[in-house]
Amino acid sequence: MVEEEYIYFFGDGRAEGARLGKPVLGGKGANLMQMALLGIPVPPGLVITTAACNYYNEHGEFPPGLEERLWQKLPEVERAVGMQFGGDRPLLVSVRSGAPVSMPGMMDTILNLGLNQKTIPGMIKATGNERFVRDSYRRFIQMFSNVVLGLDMEQFEHVLEKQKEAIGAENDTDLSADHLKNIAGEYRAIVKRETGRDFPEDARSQLRAAIEAVFRSWNNERAIYYRRLNGIPDDLGTAVTIQAMVFGNMGEDSGTGVAFTRNPSTGENKFYGEYLLNAQGEDVVAGIRTPHPIEDLKKQMPEIYTELDEIQKRLERHFGDMQDLEFTIQQKKLYLLQTRTGKRTGAAALRIAVEMVKAGLISEKKALMQVDPEAIPSMLAPVFVSQPKRDAIKEGRLLAKGLPAGPGAASGKIVFTSVEAMAHAGKDRVILVRQETSPEDIMGMEASQGVLTARGGMTSHAAVVARGMNKPCVVGCSVLRIDARARTMTVHSAGKTVEIREGEEISIDGSTGEVIRGSLPTESSEIDQALNGKLGRPSEMAENFKLLMQWADVARRLSVRANADTPRDARAARNFGAEGIGLCRTEHMFFDGDRLVIVRQMILADSEEERKAALDKLLPFQREDFIGIFTVMDGLPVTVRLLDPPLHEFLPQTRAQDEELAAHINLTPEEIKRRSVALKEDNPMLGHRGCRLGITFPDITRMQTRAVIEAALEVKKKGVIVLPEIMVPLVGHPKEFFLQKQVIDETAKAVIEEAGIEVDYLVGTMIEIPRAAVRADEIAQQAEFFSFGTNDLTQMTLAFSRDDSGSFLDDYLEQNIYEKSPFQTLDRDGVGELVKIAIQRGKKTRPEIKLGVCGEHGGDPQSIEFFHQVGLHYVSCSPFRVAVARLAAARTALKSG
Amino acid sequence: MVEEEYIYFFGDGRAEGARLGKPVLGGKGANLMQMALLGIPVPPGLVITTAACNYYNEHGEFPPGLEERLWQKLPEVERAVGMQFGGDRPLLVSVRSGAPVSMPGMMDTILNLGLNQKTIPGMIKATGNERFVRDSYRRFIQMFSNVVLGLDMEQFEHVLEKQKEAIGAENDTDLSADHLKNIAGEYRAIVKRETGRDFPEDARSQLRAAIEAVFRSWNNERAIYYRRLNGIPDDLGTAVTIQAMVFGNMGEDSGTGVAFTRNPSTGENKFYGEYLLNAQGEDVVAGIRTPHPIEDLKKQMPEIYTELDEIQKRLERHFGDMQDLEFTIQQKKLYLLQTRTGKRTGAAALRIAVEMVKAGLISEKKALMQVDPEAIPSMLAPVFVSQPKRDAIKEGRLLAKGLPAGPGAASGKIVFTSVEAMAHAGKDRVILVRQETSPEDIMGMEASQGVLTARGGMTSHAAVVARGMNKPCVVGCSVLRIDARARTMTVHSAGKTVEIREGEEISIDGSTGEVIRGSLPTESSEIDQALNGKLGRPSEMAENFKLLMQWADVARRLSVRANADTPRDARAARNFGAEGIGLCRTEHMFFDGDRLVIVRQMILADSEEERKAALDKLLPFQREDFIGIFTVMDGLPVTVRLLDPPLHEFLPQTRAQDEELAAHINLTPEEIKRRSVALKEDNPMLGHRGCRLGITFPDITRMQTRAVIEAALEVKKKGVIVLPEIMVPLVGHPKEFFLQKQVIDETAKAVIEEAGIEVDYLVGTMIEIPRAAVRADEIAQQAEFFSFGTNDLTQMTLAFSRDDSGSFLDDYLEQNIYEKSPFQTLDRDGVGELVKIAIQRGKKTRPEIKLGVCGEHGGDPQSIEFFHQVGLHYVSCSPFRVAVARLAAARTALKSG
Repeated sequence: MVEEEYIYFFGDGRAEGARLGKPVLGGKGANLMQMALLGIPVPPGLVITTAACNYYNEHGEFPPGLEERLWQKLPEVERAVGMQFGGDRPLLVSVRSGAPVSMPGMMDTILNLGLNQKTIPGMIKATGNERFVRDSYRRFIQMFSNVVLGLDMEQFEHVLEKQKEAIGAENDTDLSADHLKNIAGEYRAIVKRETGRDFPEDARSQLRAAIEAVFRSWNNERAIYYRRLNGIPDDLGTAVTIQAMVFGNMGEDSGTGVAFTRNPSTGENKFYGEYLLNAQGEDVVAGIRTPHPIEDLKKQMPEIYTELDEIQKRLERHFGDMQDLEFTIQQKKLYLLQTRTGKRTGAAALRIAVEMVKAGLISEKKALMQVDPEAIPSMLAPVFVSQPKRDAIKEGRLLAKGLPAGPGAASGKIVFTSVEAMAHAGKDRVILVRQETSPEDIMGMEASQGVLTARGGMTSHAAVVARGMNKPCVVGCSVLRIDARARTMTVHSAGKTVEIREGEEISIDGSTGEVIRGSLPTESSEIDQALNGKLGRPSEMAENFKLLMQWADVARRLSVRANADTPRDARAARNFGAEGIGLCRTEHMFFDGDRLVIVRQMILADSEEERKAALDKLLPFQREDFIGIFTVMDGLPVTVRLLDPPLHEFLPQTRAQDEELAAHINLTPEEIKRRSVALKEDNPMLGHRGCRLGITFPDITRMQTRAVIEAALEVKKKGVIVLPEIMVPLVGHPKEFFLQKQVIDETAKAVIEEAGIEVDYLVGTMIEIPRAAVRADEIAQQAEFFSFGTNDLTQMTLAFSRDDSGSFLDDYLEQNIYEKSPFQTLDRDGVGELVKIAIQRGKKTRPEIKLGVCGEHGGDPQSIEFFHQVGLHYVSCSPFRVAVARLAAARTALKSG
Repeated sequence: MVEEEYIYFFGDGRAEGARLGKPVLGGKGANLMQMALLGIPVPPGLVITTAACNYYNEHGEFPPGLEERLWQKLPEVERAVGMQFGGDRPLLVSVRSGAPVSMPGMMDTILNLGLNQKTIPGMIKATGNERFVRDSYRRFIQMFSNVVLGLDMEQFEHVLEKQKEAIGAENDTDLSADHLKNIAGEYRAIVKRETGRDFPEDARSQLRAAIEAVFRSWNNERAIYYRRLNGIPDDLGTAVTIQAMVFGNMGEDSGTGVAFTRNPSTGENKFYGEYLLNAQGEDVVAGIRTPHPIEDLKKQMPEIYTELDEIQKRLERHFGDMQDLEFTIQQKKLYLLQTRTGKRTGAAALRIAVEMVKAGLISEKKALMQVDPEAIPSMLAPVFVSQPKRDAIKEGRLLAKGLPAGPGAASGKIVFTSVEAMAHAGKDRVILVRQETSPEDIMGMEASQGVLTARGGMTSHAAVVARGMNKPCVVGCSVLRIDARARTMTVHSAGKTVEIREGEEISIDGSTGEVIRGSLPTESSEIDQALNGKLGRPSEMAENFKLLMQWADVARRLSVRANADTPRDARAARNFGAEGIGLCRTEHMFFDGDRLVIVRQMILADSEEERKAALDKLLPFQREDFIGIFTVMDGLPVTVRLLDPPLHEFLPQTRAQDEELAAHINLTPEEIKRRSVALKEDNPMLGHRGCRLGITFPDITRMQTRAVIEAALEVKKKGVIVLPEIMVPLVGHPKEFFLQKQVIDETAKAVIEEAGIEVDYLVGTMIEIPRAAVRADEIAQQAEFFSFGTNDLTQMTLAFSRDDSGSFLDDYLEQNIYEKSPFQTLDRDGVGELVKIAIQRGKKTRPEIKLGVCGEHGGDPQSIEFFHQVGLHYVSCSPFRVAVARLAAARTALKSG
């Protein structure tokens, strides 16, 4: 048996095992190897593979032979730089983690490893700069103690501050070599005191411990949390890159910098970055000195600039994407320390992707893979008009900055409770401000223009719900002090205390996290304006967006429809590229104005005649609704779902409403109350709703079918191409569907015969109850389509009430039981399993059955990937997520080959 | 191709196609053929097969060739009796339906078919009794008009009454041949008027129409309803028996009777029956004349009696079961018209089965098949002491008789609302009297000793729920006039009006349906007393019961456990033969006395410390509970389920209760209210309960585990053999189970180490969420047993809330969507499918996994059949259904071979 190779060398234009790529070498290691192969100057080094990490974390020790191999391979690095690790001309190394997927900040880097009492003199000799060496050593102890030994930074900082105080120094740079030597001594004393052992002097011991620390860091809390947040598997492991140190602080002919091959915030195709001369990397990041823009390097070191510019172009071309580079100049020699795909804003991603295609650098497919579908909502969301916002910030009205949890901009009066928010509904624009939100706040959130919370992260209740509602939302704004009783919000910021009372106006920008005092004008996003022909000037951004969407439409196999209940929603959906309506919820129409009284009459009816009379009055309203929607959707299919929610949802909630209703219908308020109470249910989600209503009151189904078919005939006469699909909700037993289909077909036949005009329609069902999934073969005997109602299917399959699961779901995510909320991203193992069973069984009976999804998962990229894989024909989602779904569907089609 | 034979002859010791049996010939036809083969005198006849019926009901016409075949075969009957159908010496026939399974009263019989103006003279000549012939003709027209032509009986009765009035006659027998002739004329006029056609004179037309009517009757409402009630498939069809008429009313040497081979009410092995001389069968049933006991026949017609007695013995021996016979004596010749398995009381079934085994007539297996498991509860339920009850009835205190819907006897004060019932709880014994019950009455039913309703049948809400609670229940007592507002119940009975006010006492006998005024003493059933050693005399019935149960225990493969939460329940379960406890619900212990305050403290705790402090106080209580149960169940396994219900179920409901609690714990009533409200859920069934409690509050799991293991160690020290099984409820995701198991194992290990004594225990889970069923393979990696919680699994799989489904379930049963309530009998196609998936996947990982069920379906015979088929190891049910389950398990094992 050949022993597994755990360590690979790179440098000097060589790169062993480069072909193994990121899964084995980690992102950082793999890219360094790529650069080495391209002949780009990188300091030489070794990569220890992810497999070694996994072995370590499983067995608590290095794989057999790893260490021996390390001491065999390290001399290759020594030879490449002509220095010895722990020797007189000492090789210093950096030790970094590098996971197969980017996990920024997962672990701190350790620099200058290899310094000790023995190597310091050699280092001083080599650099001729004792202060630099002493400072490097001090930093190394501090970093190592923190990262490897797990000691608190504070006591080290304290020693440093004390020393500075003692000599009246303001900056670290005021400390001399001797001062730094003393500090290092004190640092070592701390380590001895805290750990009971000496600070490791031996370079090999240092390296061994650092490698172990990197391995262990894979399972630190931060890393686990990050993986959970980003859906990264736990079994990837991290590689370790051990790289020869180069120094940017060896005089004015040295320096260090970071750069992007294009502007990461706008996407402009211009080399972009910053650098400092005579500095180490952390100085650029720490912000103590102000770095120079990269253009200045052209003047300060024109040859280096030319070399760097040539390299950045080569790297972008090689990797086919915008790169984020780190470089160091050591005594006039340029080294690239790292290259990786650069993070960018959504707008930049769009521009870069499209421009790189136009420049022939990448294919359209690759462009599609470069734009995250989740970046789209922020491109389409409304924004604050830019000048007034800039003015407000200049005037000091920026109160705080939280997490940008739901894109879009909104202004409104502050309210502190959901009840208050609902009281304003339809009158004032309000922003709901809460410590954090809970399921009871959903109605209040719905009634508000935006939501602001003091606690919670990007996946908190407020964040998830607000994104679902397409509401601007800022969360985790911890500087806010909210006093809901006193109805005030206080911000301590920049030494000032600002108190804002209920009713005062604020503005929140959910794309940036900014909270601004006072009201600000908003406008539609540039793309939205352009798509609706309201921009009045050509928009490059909108053109790029349209182009990308065209490529997506070519690439994807899944059709994308929208959930829309009104002609207005239908129009929006069509503008965003929806290819039909996958879910038209008829009940939303029932809440509108005058008809609510009739709906209530229908529900409270004591006899079939009374009920029928009310339904007859509803018919023309319903027909008008459908005429409007069919007309807008000319040529595209429209799936109309029959009445779904429990009837008591339509009934009055208060005595005053009972009395108001009593004035309209022939019942006393007491009787209304009595009948309403009789309709209340302990678990309405599992109660009298969905097709159960149609089974007990078939006249409802008759009226709705008549409205659909009459509307279809009406628009057909005007030349509209109408493709109605009638959908029966909450079917569990095949007979439920058969009985409802019979009522639908009989009614439709009658209407068609009355009119003497033919119209085609489909009848299908939602699969949203586990029983329906396992009996799908029987249901498909008569059902012409299945639409997976994954919201309800999730509730039933997991026995999680969406409204109530808040009380434990956070604990579930924290304990890693679920990676993401199953209401946000489909639970493939559970709900997905039933979806697969339903598809397989349904197709057994009706191989050509049309399959779609209309739960909110239809707009979630990860879920869309699953729906693509299992072979659905379409997804349906909110209109504002149609573009997200189009792009996600394209990407998943490309990924799967 | 050979054409299918649809018609078979029997008579003269011949019986064509007898081997085809009941599925083809129907029960009646098959048994007549058996008798013919045995040489027992039966009037000859034909049987038309069930296949013909199915063809007719599918195509709306007779199968091709059927009628020709009928006219070919009928002469065989003519030859056997020497008479001609429609001829001068006319053959008259009866036409009856006969389904493969008994469906009593599904269709009325038509007698005397073949009579018409042309055959009447021949018939008069043959019988020498014109009055008899005229009366037969009149009856025939009436019967035919009603059954075949679908006319209302009333107008015929009216003609008869008018005629009787006109001549001042009191009885039908006072009418002369001429009167009857006139009546027949008027009858025919009615038919002409109502149908527009003449009454069919042609005998063949009569027969054809009668056959069609029988075929159609398969799908009449009554038949469909009966099938639904009894779970009989709709596609069996009915056979038609056409049999030569014989007459018991041809003088004093003729007669007719019905008999049982044993006493159907006590089971005593004594020929039992009644007869009338010079009468037709319907006279015996109608009760106009008082029939003689069968013994009298010994004196009146000794030879006939001897023949009949010999025949009844032969029949019982042949069929191996107690028979129910119909016979006619026509001019000293005995004919058997029918034999079938006799209906009997539960007590009689038990006695007959055991005595027939002892007599060597049947095998033990057959005996087991003769006792309906559902008859057992009434044998075990308490009864009224017999003398006082007899006295009460003699005193005229019997108020009414309803349907015996829940066996057992109870007395108590009348209450008319559930609220009132609950107010009496723990103080007075009450009987809840309602028009009908609904889910809101469940708490009230629980608080009552018995339930009485004016409406509803054997499967009404009250009936089903009361049986589930093991409460005496009488339903459908329609003579009751209930005025819940006035709080009175009025009974009009035997000309008297009795008004009973709230608080007055009544007694109900749920085994007989009797409602008696005043209180009556009750006692345990004879078997129950004997099993518990309290009878003080030998009981044959109890011995028979024990014997039958022993046979059942030998035959069955399924183990039977009980659901029991207290040592008292555990003791009862053991007495009824439970082989362990399959479900010990720890929450029931939480409601007890003092500890409820601590439980509430635990729930309302604001910090982990507070919660832990309350749990520490609960620990000794829980430990004591388990010590009691383990001690009783010495040697048998006990499955303890961790806390399951939503916490708010334990909290105070009223302001007064809030205040009471506040006095005990360190919170204000307002704060208690606030925290209670915060715990309320929209859909508690899908909320924070089950293992979700253990995930969010692992200290609860720790406390409960500690209580179980400490109790186990405690009893083990005393020599008790203890087999604890800890069960995690409501698992949906494997990780939920893994995390809880880790807490359980760690806690158990600590307790065991503290004590220094070993104890074995299992850790398993409930499968009650669809997700758990589809991920059972993963769960089984660590779960040592699965217990199917079919109550919840039904709720989730069907999305039916048990508490709310009442509002539509009746409609569902009526429309035949479900045959039975899925909460009573397992929905095999839906829930059963998931059970099968879970078993298959669970066994893939852990082939030897222990499998059981602890939902209420565990005590339902039809569901037990399914559990046997899919290979569960045990069922667990209420203690009082353990014997039901033992017998049902045996029967299903025997059936499946």
